[in-house]
Amino acid sequence: MARGLFVTFEGGDGSGKTTVIHELEKRLDKLQISYLHTREPGGSVIAEEIRNIILDRKNTAMDKRTEALLYAASRRQHLVEIVFPALKEGKIVLCDRYLDSSLAYQGYARKIGMDEVYSINLFATENTLPDLTFFLDLPPKEGLLRIAKNKEREVNRLDLEKENFHQAVYEGYQLLLKRYPERIKRIDARKSVDEEVEEIEKILLPRIKQG
Amino acid sequence: MARGLFVTFEGGDGSGKTTVIHELEKRLDKLQISYLHTREPGGSVIAEEIRNIILDRKNTAMDKRTEALLYAASRRQHLVEIVFPALKEGKIVLCDRYLDSSLAYQGYARKIGMDEVYSINLFATENTLPDLTFFLDLPPKEGLLRIAKNKEREVNRLDLEKENFHQAVYEGYQLLLKRYPERIKRIDARKSVDEEVEEIEKILLPRIKQG
Repeated sequence: MARGLFVTFEGGDGSGKTTVIHELEKRLDKLQISYLHTREPGGSVIAEEIRNIILDRKNTAMDKRTEALLYAASRRQHLVEIVFPALKEGKIVLCDRYLDSSLAYQGYARKIGMDEVYSINLFATENTLPDLTFFLDLPPKEGLLRIAKNKEREVNRLDLEKENFHQAVYEGYQLLLKRYPERIKRIDARKSVDEEVEEIEKILLPRIKQG
Repeated sequence: MARGLFVTFEGGDGSGKTTVIHELEKRLDKLQISYLHTREPGGSVIAEEIRNIILDRKNTAMDKRTEALLYAASRRQHLVEIVFPALKEGKIVLCDRYLDSSLAYQGYARKIGMDEVYSINLFATENTLPDLTFFLDLPPKEGLLRIAKNKEREVNRLDLEKENFHQAVYEGYQLLLKRYPERIKRIDARKSVDEEVEEIEKILLPRIKQG
């Protein structure tokens, strides 16, 4: 039975994940490789309802552990409704953020602890780790500058965090790179989009052919 | 510093928890003992928003692990906003359902596994177990009959479960009684409300005086 490849993209806000994935899509189209581009909540009605609670700017009383549990719940539902069926069809799943985001944001930057946040995500995902993760590495100051320039995007509760929070997220990702060197590949996000996607292709395409 | 007593009430649907707690309240009023009667989501706006997703009859696609994570998230928020402050004020907190419900319903009856559901609740509660738990023991068939007679209550998604589900919940509670004999006290719910509350008082009042 076919089993696709589960590929996730991680990085701080403004690191260019969406742009890079869109460019990668064009290349996969040319190669006639079947993929699904998604992000949590990604078309699951229930996951979206959960996400609305997390991002609601009114919900200032939200405890950080509540937030982590809601991300895990939304992740679970997105996996079951969107990711698992696509993998079963043999598709390459390109997912914009996944478990590592929770480890870096809630576990490290909000100081719940990476292992604690991992434990609830282990429950949520039944230990479904990505086959491959690309970390778009950009110093947080540069990422925030990029966001500030992009005024079309709606501001949500998480955008209002202070700069030292984004610095902590960045440090969390650096720890994850050390912890999962086989799975997480670092991509220098100060390079051009073309250069980034070429690097990603070099790592990704041989994995697809193996499949 | 004062530290109240955290008391939870458990039992299958129709076991009479609400009635028993109301009667107990009257007795505590007479004794001028300060208490808070609550249940999840219990006045926390965020916990209520989470609970609305769980109970929405439209959400038939909800995965059982998503459901368990949402209960844990709602529990966390209710603890932080409602229970912890009351305990800090030295109040007796009477909580209608808590962690044991998740273990019996999601862990045992939905077959996720009690230990797995316990792990996410450990995260949610930071290991805050009740000081005392009263299990109102009523065979599920009798509980369902009581509910059927009470037509004023609105039917939600969980009421639509089949009878063997309620039987499994009951078995789950029996396992919990064996696992936590010191914390969980069995109350025969076929007795009259007065008899039940007298039994509860006999166990509860000495614990309050010790506090």
